[in-house]
Amino acid sequence: MPAARTRILVVAFGGNALIRGGEDGTQKQQQRRALDLAAGILPLARTGAGLLLIHGNGPQVGQILIQAEEASTRVPSQSLDVCVAQSEGSVAYILERALRTVLGQAGLQRPVTSIITHVRVSRADPALRAPSKPIGPFYTRFRARALRRQRHWPMVEDAGRGYRRVVPSPRPVEVLQLETIRALLERGHLVIAAGGGGIPVARSARGEWSGVEAVIDKDLTAGLLAAKLHAEKLVILTDVDQVVLDYGKPEQRPVSSMGLRDARRYLRAGQFPPGSMGPKVKACLHYMARVRGEAIITSVRGLPRALQGRGGTRFVPAPGREHRRRTA
Amino acid sequence: MPAARTRILVVAFGGNALIRGGEDGTQKQQQRRALDLAAGILPLARTGAGLLLIHGNGPQVGQILIQAEEASTRVPSQSLDVCVAQSEGSVAYILERALRTVLGQAGLQRPVTSIITHVRVSRADPALRAPSKPIGPFYTRFRARALRRQRHWPMVEDAGRGYRRVVPSPRPVEVLQLETIRALLERGHLVIAAGGGGIPVARSARGEWSGVEAVIDKDLTAGLLAAKLHAEKLVILTDVDQVVLDYGKPEQRPVSSMGLRDARRYLRAGQFPPGSMGPKVKACLHYMARVRGEAIITSVRGLPRALQGRGGTRFVPAPGREHRRRTA
Repeated sequence: MPAARTRILVVAFGGNALIRGGEDGTQKQQQRRALDLAAGILPLARTGAGLLLIHGNGPQVGQILIQAEEASTRVPSQSLDVCVAQSEGSVAYILERALRTVLGQAGLQRPVTSIITHVRVSRADPALRAPSKPIGPFYTRFRARALRRQRHWPMVEDAGRGYRRVVPSPRPVEVLQLETIRALLERGHLVIAAGGGGIPVARSARGEWSGVEAVIDKDLTAGLLAAKLHAEKLVILTDVDQVVLDYGKPEQRPVSSMGLRDARRYLRAGQFPPGSMGPKVKACLHYMARVRGEAIITSVRGLPRALQGRGGTRFVPAPGREHRRRTA
Repeated sequence: MPAARTRILVVAFGGNALIRGGEDGTQKQQQRRALDLAAGILPLARTGAGLLLIHGNGPQVGQILIQAEEASTRVPSQSLDVCVAQSEGSVAYILERALRTVLGQAGLQRPVTSIITHVRVSRADPALRAPSKPIGPFYTRFRARALRRQRHWPMVEDAGRGYRRVVPSPRPVEVLQLETIRALLERGHLVIAAGGGGIPVARSARGEWSGVEAVIDKDLTAGLLAAKLHAEKLVILTDVDQVVLDYGKPEQRPVSSMGLRDARRYLRAGQFPPGSMGPKVKACLHYMARVRGEAIITSVRGLPRALQGRGGTRFVPAPGREHRRRTA
């Protein structure tokens, strides 16, 4: 496996790093949270490594979808891939601006670059025929029935809060801007890319690229990129400091380190829900099976301690064996 | 003046390359127009030069503003800088996808990269205190009066079609991603950057970056970038094949070549309206005064002929003199 010329770190975090559940999601709030996040990432920026930041976009696309719907009698609504592209623009802008402020005030001269990122998915992915990812606003049962009929949207009841549209969440196959991202990271850039998991695109037999009405899980894209870039670390930031086993049961416990075989077993046993911790663990497994690096799941607050080996959940290969099996 | 290592060409075109006046601006229409544009640009891509594409975003931001307004009781509206960032994401996505299709079908292996671009403006720019650029939807006189009162928006009557909000259009001072754009162009990329003229930002004395409620003219940013990048050519694509003098008068005539001193004189004499041909001519003048290159204004259709020296309006320095004066 070729070693990267510059150390590369990959950090993923949710769109709720900027808009928390229950908040209005005003720009002031988003800007303040972006500054907090930039300050949290500062220790990683100080290492001088190429730093790839991958943000989620759930709440942001939710806002865009509401805006499109409310204005649908006045302007044509955009498809989901274009909504993702819009959110890549706005979220990257707010993050990059906050990073410039925080890096500048810390006296760090690091270039920051945000790349609009297309991620190829397969038209044959079975996930495209089984929509599973709830997006956008909550609807009443009455409205949900109408939308199912009028727009042929599959709808699901979500967490007792109402009905939501569900869309497919296909597996990321290829990041089209991979080599550009690599080149910038190797020049020491902080790169914001693959926001929202990337814009899902597919190519026809005749070579035509088109958008796909779907969303890609940003954690899975982060795992794919961390592996392709031979990153030294993959850090997935979430709401909790550590991964919890047997969540909600009496034997519930946080774990500070998890062997890859154990992680696979837990995943199969349904320990990690598909919409939240599941893809994060999958991303870490994908990466750790391909690169001799370090995968950590923790919170923004927990990051400084986790980087010192205290707190967070760290994935550890069964000594020597996992890699031998892969490269055999 | 240092010569660029790779030839660099800069091409600017309006947001109406994708959404024409009078059209609904559906995605299908935008995709078709993007493919036409990509095909029009193909001869430039074939040269192997680093190719910088700068798109406008008027109609796209217009749609986003309508969506934000219609949904303003449900989600917080975004400020204008964030709308520009969203449009950089979506327009670049649609363009880049079309370029991938057209380049691929033509058998050209050229990387394409879209960069979210921040452009610094000066808080002291007098334009910030004199809003002049109409944006967004047309309002009735009645509604315009209400918006003036409630939101303190300056409004103007626009071309007899109704009232529009006007916002400041400050001068672009610095493109924050300039060195990244240069590095990618020198590696032979097609780069989409500074969409909509770039996202206007400013830095406070304490080093905080913030957005500015304004729009930057994309032609002026194109002129600035063409100069900074020592581009070999600046091509500004518009609705007409050639610049017209004495427009609407009996002596009206298209010009195929314009000396820089003549162009300055025409500009001062009010030959080119501020919102349309004015900034295009200014951009060409800015560039030609700094770089020994070629500036052309023409249409997408006229481009192939203009590149062969037939058609289009070409700016020519008064032989030897203009440059001598500058470098003296």
